[in-house]
Amino acid sequence: MRDLVLEIPADDRPVYLRLAQAVREAIRKGFAQPGEAIPSTRSLARAAGVHRHTVMAALDELVAEGWLSARPGQAYRVEPDLPDPYFRPATKPAARSAPKPQGAFPFRIVRSSSRPAPEQPLLPYRFQGGLPDLRLFPADEFRSHVADMLRTGFESHLTYGDVAGFTPFLRTLGTYLRRLRGLHAPHLLVTHGSQEAAFLVGQLLISPGDVVAVEALGYPPTWNALAAAGAHLVGLAVDEAGLVPEDFARLCSRRRVRLLCLTPLHQYPTTVTLPVARRMEIYRIAQKHGVPILEDDYDHEYHYRCQPLPPLASEDPQGLVLYVSTFSKVLYPAARVGFMAVPQGLFKPLSELKRFVSRQNDSLIQGALARWMEEGGFSRHLRRMRRTYAERLDALVAVLEEARASGVDLSWRTPDGGMALWLKIPWDAERAAAAARASGVLVHPEPLYQLRPGAGRHLRLGFANLTPAEIRAGMKRLLAACARLPASRQ
Amino acid sequence: MRDLVLEIPADDRPVYLRLAQAVREAIRKGFAQPGEAIPSTRSLARAAGVHRHTVMAALDELVAEGWLSARPGQAYRVEPDLPDPYFRPATKPAARSAPKPQGAFPFRIVRSSSRPAPEQPLLPYRFQGGLPDLRLFPADEFRSHVADMLRTGFESHLTYGDVAGFTPFLRTLGTYLRRLRGLHAPHLLVTHGSQEAAFLVGQLLISPGDVVAVEALGYPPTWNALAAAGAHLVGLAVDEAGLVPEDFARLCSRRRVRLLCLTPLHQYPTTVTLPVARRMEIYRIAQKHGVPILEDDYDHEYHYRCQPLPPLASEDPQGLVLYVSTFSKVLYPAARVGFMAVPQGLFKPLSELKRFVSRQNDSLIQGALARWMEEGGFSRHLRRMRRTYAERLDALVAVLEEARASGVDLSWRTPDGGMALWLKIPWDAERAAAAARASGVLVHPEPLYQLRPGAGRHLRLGFANLTPAEIRAGMKRLLAACARLPASRQ
Repeated sequence: MRDLVLEIPADDRPVYLRLAQAVREAIRKGFAQPGEAIPSTRSLARAAGVHRHTVMAALDELVAEGWLSARPGQAYRVEPDLPDPYFRPATKPAARSAPKPQGAFPFRIVRSSSRPAPEQPLLPYRFQGGLPDLRLFPADEFRSHVADMLRTGFESHLTYGDVAGFTPFLRTLGTYLRRLRGLHAPHLLVTHGSQEAAFLVGQLLISPGDVVAVEALGYPPTWNALAAAGAHLVGLAVDEAGLVPEDFARLCSRRRVRLLCLTPLHQYPTTVTLPVARRMEIYRIAQKHGVPILEDDYDHEYHYRCQPLPPLASEDPQGLVLYVSTFSKVLYPAARVGFMAVPQGLFKPLSELKRFVSRQNDSLIQGALARWMEEGGFSRHLRRMRRTYAERLDALVAVLEEARASGVDLSWRTPDGGMALWLKIPWDAERAAAAARASGVLVHPEPLYQLRPGAGRHLRLGFANLTPAEIRAGMKRLLAACARLPASRQ
Repeated sequence: MRDLVLEIPADDRPVYLRLAQAVREAIRKGFAQPGEAIPSTRSLARAAGVHRHTVMAALDELVAEGWLSARPGQAYRVEPDLPDPYFRPATKPAARSAPKPQGAFPFRIVRSSSRPAPEQPLLPYRFQGGLPDLRLFPADEFRSHVADMLRTGFESHLTYGDVAGFTPFLRTLGTYLRRLRGLHAPHLLVTHGSQEAAFLVGQLLISPGDVVAVEALGYPPTWNALAAAGAHLVGLAVDEAGLVPEDFARLCSRRRVRLLCLTPLHQYPTTVTLPVARRMEIYRIAQKHGVPILEDDYDHEYHYRCQPLPPLASEDPQGLVLYVSTFSKVLYPAARVGFMAVPQGLFKPLSELKRFVSRQNDSLIQGALARWMEEGGFSRHLRRMRRTYAERLDALVAVLEEARASGVDLSWRTPDGGMALWLKIPWDAERAAAAARASGVLVHPEPLYQLRPGAGRHLRLGFANLTPAEIRAGMKRLLAACARLPASRQ
């Protein structure tokens, strides 16, 4: 048997079907001879980073198709009578050191546990969570700061610089975090969005197979970053107050947990705020079991009803918290200015990794942002946006209340902050999203945020990038489109 | 024995000393009890990603210090009589699932094979290779293009976009590569500098222990990116015509080589151009053994004497070449606009990886660069710089000829292009660089570029960021500082 190289296609089909395709291709390329046993479901599960049941589903698919045969209690084998047109093994199985076939070379699995990016078609009404309204971005103002950076001192500013970030920006950022988030962060590292931060944490902390606890309703891009390091993701329950501490404690008592990923402020995707008692309990459990916490504070600035709770990282006597945040929601998403604040001992290895991964961030944008923050424009913009988004949230809630009054079975908890509302609907979420889409409305259904995608009855309604009028018109279309759907029995 | 966690410091000391320190710390933390055998040199070598000889050197150091004892033919053991003040094991070795000590958690090795970044002190004369002269950067012109991006359409341009790059930039880049480099590149991926490109290639193609062939005199940041994926780097000889094909063929016949890293145009650091016959031979060997080639074409634009040879990727019938390049040398280094052109089958998995690592590049800079290229400013700037850098190279050569005429034993081949000259001197390169530094001159010595750092008699003299007058003054200082050194006997 030759080395098994699985090339799992990354598309929208269920994982088991894509895995089946990869194994089928491997058989076609002759990694095992007819009649030969293939590796155990356990080792395939490990190699592909999926659950064993998924592997079994994939192999059963191949049995049904006639590629494999299975007998109770025995290994799956390549079907001995595989018809020749389907099966052309290499004339002789190549030894490990033998030349590869010309023009083709195998590559590592892009982990099949990775989640495809949800489509973002340019529909008239896009209730897209996490997207600021760039029509309101004061580009003139920001432009003048970029221009300043290109006017004075650019010879020394735009060259290779400190891996951790552009020094003047790091200084401004430190002050900002202390004043506005109560976070004393001496060890700051600027990253290409929060995505690179999560990726670096994965590379540093995770070895293949390590258990990483995540919110079972959570943020798939972080899962992807950690899965790329081989993390075995385990979902923890999320209820109407956020992550359930007991579930975390239970997992820690059973398994060695290498990392906990948490969105305490506006839980992603439900936007609930984790109450103080739960935060303390989660921290206590993490401390007891020595579990580092990746705290993702992705839209701290957008809190409407009151001051947002300071981050977990602001009170971290044990140095357990790796704090990750971003300016994508206030500046513009394409700016790629994320950052992390980490315990002292992790700063050096993380900067080293960053040096290998991308060397540094663009100092032009960091410098312009620093100037914008220093000059006060950033805060002014933020105040305006906070007021605007709060109005939009009110508009959305008003539409929902109206619909509920007219008999549609909707329920939600109006969030204290964030850029989206988590709405329970009387229909299957995926069918509702599909119906909405056909009516020109983009909305993302619950299964997109489930670690193990199943069914769901929630939609995530981003409200920040739509005006009140757009919200009303879009919701009207959405509800009209769904009215024709059967009620979900769940 | 507990799990061995090696925290190898990343500083300038030889690897074996840093490894020794890591093992010493692990013993101090009680990973093995007095009298207990430690893991084999082979497994330590694998874990640390270093040669077994390095491990043996590190362990012998610890034997000399009294931490370990060694008997011929037996495993190294923790010294049974280790004096207590030096050795405080955990009162009871912790089991794998036991809680970790509060506030501390182990992390993965940042591979000890990683090379520290050379220091770049702000000395008066900096012969720093690869650094463009930003004093000549037409910031006004570029500023107007950035401003344009922030003036029109920014609402749709500055949002989350295509992982592969900002569409208008990809289009412009495709045309540019076809016209100016003879490269038809339908599968382009924009990256954060060439660094991220090399990192992505490593993540996709390399499994721990895979042999990667590199130029033994080469570019350490690429080595770091590949070592981060666990590559076992093997150096191939470089002579006055570049990489020696026979050495590559020899390695391929002995080991399965997973990747070849090559800088064919201006070999890094020697800046020689690989002759066509050698290119063809190297390609033929790579094809025979199925070895993908990472072609790093880092300063294609700076060629003075003639048209530069088109990249290997421009004639790649077998789809073996992953072409990597960057705009850091024409735009500004901090811009982080690199890119890669890859064979069709690799585009999808590489974009997927990029999505996990950093999501996308900043579209503001890509868009501004695209406009600058479209409008012709980029070419105008390039023509100016080409003329300027050619003059600077001439100035450097004139100084060197003068010194040689006055009896200093210097030799070099004047490069056809690039931003540096590789100079052979009659002194030990590291001593020369230290002497120069004490005289206010920054220059990088040969060992910085050696895969296995030893001695050397070459300096890499970057000439692009200094005026002819600065070059003359700096070289005068450098030669005066070295005149006091003993001649190298090598």
